[in-house]
Amino acid sequence: MSEYLPGLAGVPATKSNISDIDGAQGLLTYRGYPIEELALSSSFEETTLLLLDGELPDAAELSEFSAQLCANRPVKFHIREMMRQMPGTGHPMDMLQTAVASLGMFYPGNECLTNAEVGEDLNYVHNMTVKIIARMGTLVAMWEHIRNGYDPIPPRSDLSYAENFLYMFTGREPDPLLARILDVCLILHAEHTINASTFSVLVSGSTLASPYSVITSAIATLSGPLHGGANQKVVEMLHEIGTPERAEEYVTRRLANKEVIWGMGHREYKTKDPRANILQRLTEELMEARGGDVNPMFEVAKAVERISEERLGPKGVYANVDFYSGILYTEMGIPSDQFTALFAMARSAGWLAHWREQLVDNRIFRPTQVYTGRERRSYTPIEQR
Amino acid sequence: MSEYLPGLAGVPATKSNISDIDGAQGLLTYRGYPIEELALSSSFEETTLLLLDGELPDAAELSEFSAQLCANRPVKFHIREMMRQMPGTGHPMDMLQTAVASLGMFYPGNECLTNAEVGEDLNYVHNMTVKIIARMGTLVAMWEHIRNGYDPIPPRSDLSYAENFLYMFTGREPDPLLARILDVCLILHAEHTINASTFSVLVSGSTLASPYSVITSAIATLSGPLHGGANQKVVEMLHEIGTPERAEEYVTRRLANKEVIWGMGHREYKTKDPRANILQRLTEELMEARGGDVNPMFEVAKAVERISEERLGPKGVYANVDFYSGILYTEMGIPSDQFTALFAMARSAGWLAHWREQLVDNRIFRPTQVYTGRERRSYTPIEQR
Repeated sequence: MSEYLPGLAGVPATKSNISDIDGAQGLLTYRGYPIEELALSSSFEETTLLLLDGELPDAAELSEFSAQLCANRPVKFHIREMMRQMPGTGHPMDMLQTAVASLGMFYPGNECLTNAEVGEDLNYVHNMTVKIIARMGTLVAMWEHIRNGYDPIPPRSDLSYAENFLYMFTGREPDPLLARILDVCLILHAEHTINASTFSVLVSGSTLASPYSVITSAIATLSGPLHGGANQKVVEMLHEIGTPERAEEYVTRRLANKEVIWGMGHREYKTKDPRANILQRLTEELMEARGGDVNPMFEVAKAVERISEERLGPKGVYANVDFYSGILYTEMGIPSDQFTALFAMARSAGWLAHWREQLVDNRIFRPTQVYTGRERRSYTPIEQR
Repeated sequence: MSEYLPGLAGVPATKSNISDIDGAQGLLTYRGYPIEELALSSSFEETTLLLLDGELPDAAELSEFSAQLCANRPVKFHIREMMRQMPGTGHPMDMLQTAVASLGMFYPGNECLTNAEVGEDLNYVHNMTVKIIARMGTLVAMWEHIRNGYDPIPPRSDLSYAENFLYMFTGREPDPLLARILDVCLILHAEHTINASTFSVLVSGSTLASPYSVITSAIATLSGPLHGGANQKVVEMLHEIGTPERAEEYVTRRLANKEVIWGMGHREYKTKDPRANILQRLTEELMEARGGDVNPMFEVAKAVERISEERLGPKGVYANVDFYSGILYTEMGIPSDQFTALFAMARSAGWLAHWREQLVDNRIFRPTQVYTGRERRSYTPIEQR
């Protein structure tokens, strides 16, 4: 038997072609393409197809895929009626698990395929993938209206994924710069090798559960505070600090108490998270375009980052992707408890790429345990206990 | 880096005190107690408390736990209304994922506990556990009525878990022998070390996701045809065979084509699955009590088992727990597509025992990958592809 390593740290759980991290150099690639180049030139739709297929699409392929996503944006009114029964206090991540699981009943696939058949029937796999990714945004935006007592705003088919999401969420024509920033945020969150939620995809997918079940399981795992949700904490922290002048005292006190600075540091990167650099530039671009008329939290964030990097940079701790995404989402009018749902919406692309990759050479996950319990003993009747 | 072992076969993923299998000798123990003794003398309620707490309860503890389960059987009418929106063709396992995920909104716990706090707050953990196990049966039984266009039957609090489930499911006063058989089936399915769905519990739970999310993830994983669902296949096989005389031809042909005989063989056991022995005796008891007036499938099953064991026994392949549970459930009036939902209902006890055990010394699962993809390459504009 192999050695027991808690959390399977460093234990390879799969072979994968999808993404790669060089933590020492701060590099992240999807299918070999650096994340910086994708953020600069690609779209969420194109990046999703790259993650799924392994190659950048040509114009005709991208156009067909975008049309498929548009066609699958609407959801049946039964799902809206289900959401109307949910308590408005319900967390968006609980709603999302519920709604995605229900898609398995409303949009079933062919569930009788065997292992080999599923892996080989790329058409089936592609159709299921489109059905899910397209509807993630609709479900997240619907809940924002329904939980506040309003009717949801139906999707449009003349807008990109990011534009349509902002339109459904806010009810306004999307601001082009904000839509571009959201598009980049979706690209940056679409994939990140084998983290806990992606590992859930592998474990659930290995029993040949439906892709709806697989994504439900991944959302469940992402919902935990140790995984998703750090960008929400960043925004809460910035509000707690309040003004740039108070940043130094806050950071000093937290570090003295051995508490984390939210949005700083990442298990994989020993340099600044490459995604944080991209978001920092976008944040500056947005501030410039607005002539300084932005959320005061931006100035607080800059102060926190500067002070944190002075203190923590020498230890390899820098701002990560969560540090800026929260304030950018706030600027789009998205409440902080929805941030992890947006994360799930973007990550559904990477999750489904891993689902598809594994199907071709699937083996059920059945690790073992180190049994540390009681030796065999005899049952005693309740009167004798 | 450790060696890559597909499916993490043989790789220890946790230390656990809960259950143990000796596959060579055909032994299964829960907290040290042989499954045969629990099946003979215990109840699902008592076994659940044993799995959770580690020791058999005294009379007062068992009585309090049973009362807590009774008090948590009802579900809010909003959940019934949600189910009324679901298509009647929806699979019970998809319904169950949806409904259990929704419990996170209807019955939220304290979601702000840190790692250490959750592990130490046994009261919180116990309350959440009761809320889920108690309602699993209600949800499964509700769906049987709602999908057929009828109002669900509210739970009663004067019946045991097994009796109340049969009452809610069938609408009749439960037959005592069938209720006892169901009770034993629930005990036998309550726990079975680290299989794929229990591993999902560990992975999802490791991010400190809520127990509703954790159980949703486990149900998702169990729903795959490589994991749950074999007992449904057994019943379909028996119907296909039709009469005991045709069993020999069927088994011979399947084996010649290198096809499996459903319900025969188990990855862990090289002898007869100890749970199958128990169910075989109960099946005989039921046939005797009925004076032979039982489903003709019982005779087909006996013929299939006899012939299969002649041919496969020398290779260590014998009947497993799924072989008899399907026909017993059929005799209770439970349709075959509900069998895996009953499995989930019973297994929720073991899943939550593992959730609780892990919280005390939690570490997020983040295994690694063997990257087999493309080297770094540059983005090419779409016009140049």
